[in-house]
Amino acid sequence: YRKVSTPRHPGAARPAGRRCHNRRVAETTEEMLARVRASFDRQGMMSTLGVEVTAVEPGKVEMSLRHDDRFTQQHGFLHAGAVASVLDTACGFAAFSVMPPDAAVLTASYTINLLAPAAGERFTITGEVVRAGRTLVVCRGEAFADGDKRPFAVMQATMTALFGRTGISG
Amino acid sequence: YRKVSTPRHPGAARPAGRRCHNRRVAETTEEMLARVRASFDRQGMMSTLGVEVTAVEPGKVEMSLRHDDRFTQQHGFLHAGAVASVLDTACGFAAFSVMPPDAAVLTASYTINLLAPAAGERFTITGEVVRAGRTLVVCRGEAFADGDKRPFAVMQATMTALFGRTGISG
Amino acid sequence: YRKVSTPRHPGAARPAGRRCHNRRVAETTEEMLARVRASFDRQGMMSTLGVEVTAVEPGKVEMSLRHDDRFTQQHGFLHAGAVASVLDTACGFAAFSVMPPDAAVLTASYTINLLAPAAGERFTITGEVVRAGRTLVVCRGEAFADGDKRPFAVMQATMTALFGRTGISG
Amino acid sequence: YRKVSTPRHPGAARPAGRRCHNRRVAETTEEMLARVRASFDRQGMMSTLGVEVTAVEPGKVEMSLRHDDRFTQQHGFLHAGAVASVLDTACGFAAFSVMPPDAAVLTASYTINLLAPAAGERFTITGEVVRAGRTLVVCRGEAFADGDKRPFAVMQATMTALFGRTGISG
Repeated sequence: YRKVSTPRHPGAARPAGRRCHNRRVAETTEEMLARVRASFDRQGMMSTLGVEVTAVEPGKVEMSLRHDDRFTQQHGFLHAGAVASVLDTACGFAAFSVMPPDAAVLTASYTINLLAPAAGERFTITGEVVRAGRTLVVCRGEAFADGDKRPFAVMQATMTALFGRTGISG
Repeated sequence: YRKVSTPRHPGAARPAGRRCHNRRVAETTEEMLARVRASFDRQGMMSTLGVEVTAVEPGKVEMSLRHDDRFTQQHGFLHAGAVASVLDTACGFAAFSVMPPDAAVLTASYTINLLAPAAGERFTITGEVVRAGRTLVVCRGEAFADGDKRPFAVMQATMTALFGRTGISG
Repeated sequence: YRKVSTPRHPGAARPAGRRCHNRRVAETTEEMLARVRASFDRQGMMSTLGVEVTAVEPGKVEMSLRHDDRFTQQHGFLHAGAVASVLDTACGFAAFSVMPPDAAVLTASYTINLLAPAAGERFTITGEVVRAGRTLVVCRGEAFADGDKRPFAVMQATMTALFGRTGISG
Repeated sequence: YRKVSTPRHPGAARPAGRRCHNRRVAETTEEMLARVRASFDRQGMMSTLGVEVTAVEPGKVEMSLRHDDRFTQQHGFLHAGAVASVLDTACGFAAFSVMPPDAAVLTASYTINLLAPAAGERFTITGEVVRAGRTLVVCRGEAFADGDKRPFAVMQATMTALFGRTGISG
């Protein structure tokens, strides 16, 4: 079992020399995956929506969601809020995966465009880092219905890395 | 019981002379409220989140949401996705309230800024029409925790009026 | 000179059977390019900023912009507004290139994320259709400085197709 | 001449005890105005567009812009990019006005909705702080044509406070 330092994502936060709190620690991919998984498992919302993490690599996350009548809008399609919740989380964990291990991640803002109703049985939702700065990480997310190659929703999100806030980690 | 034509919101859709499908029908305020209420009641997501409509007037809607451990993010606060779902719906119904009675409303896009975690017991969420065009209605939403006067989240949303799509109304 | 019908972009507007005004006309690629070029040439802003169109294909546009002290922000970098103007225009023409020939294009909204200052001499700016609906076309734009492979700005934009408005075309 | 400490905006950045570089200095309103003015005067873009600052108070800025054929889009209206540049700057200076004197301000992201073409002779553009956090300040902007009471464009923007970057101030 080799101690491999995390393969750095092209957009990964540069060693942040200026910040007083941030000692970047070498982290294995396994440690990163465990860190992402632990944070995901603490989200009541993801468990309630029945979301599964289907793939994680540095800077990229894929999740899966099923249609559920508890989460519909007035026309019977999945509510944009359910889709946005998972897109937001996928983007958040994509960002989190390239943050230093002692960072907590919070969503600062996102824009979602809904290109078609969320019509289908199974939805695949991806989040990907576009570029990571010191404290802000910009991500893109896409949501696909069943086998459709064209996304029915896209997101552009800004995530913040928080350090040293008592009671907030992961 | 007087048949009063709907008080026109300053930003209400102008009589859309060009559109071939749109016959504007006089609607009482009671009819508008019933129309909004009926559409709201068909949203599985709102019922699952336990959202209540606390006020509706033409172009403005207020809703209420409680903290619920089923809808939390990893730090124990309400998930941004739950807040966004209600902000989106509040904006959607604010737009819907100034649309012609035969329109269906869909969210085209929104931007949400999260200014602080959703920490609190009871959240008040408002949606308001900024300006309504022929098919696009732009709204603003704000979310407040407990008695706080400053919003912890704000939204800028674009809603679409749909006409004459089979199976989509309200 | 062969009359080839426009290669349909995967996200191109479907033949819009429902719309009463929209007779889709076969258009050659040359005609589409001429239509985009004519519209671009009417933009005073693009000429003032010194923007060049470097590539156009159905659903995708690339433009080029140079640093100019007339368009800087307070730290001497190119103003975000100059970058946003070109990103917006690149997205607008990407959308326009897949719209029916009788449509006019207007920007409904966009979100721009600025990932780094616009530091450099020459900026490459791309706009691309993500998915085109009946009246709304969603696009993505990216801005690159000099030879950098990572964008310093990204945009998610919603464009509207307008039909039959007197005095508005292109 | 009394040394009055700056009237704190409701959303002003709290004394940021954790940050190692940030010594909050009492600042008079005059000093704040001078700081905003100096930064504005360094923007080549604002001077090129012919923008005037018409009002500044802590957390709120108003600017004015005239129609100019050099900055039009293809239908002869003012280009959204020109409007967005001024909205962005108004939001930026609204944020800057409540930041510590040693901060530099940069735009992280914004969303603009264009509700109608920028048709008119003189445009009034406002920027206002919604809420200011440690490093992120969220603002709202509105653009009005001539005497119109309804905005033709609205913005929701996220500004960043930067500290201690060599060569970046104001």
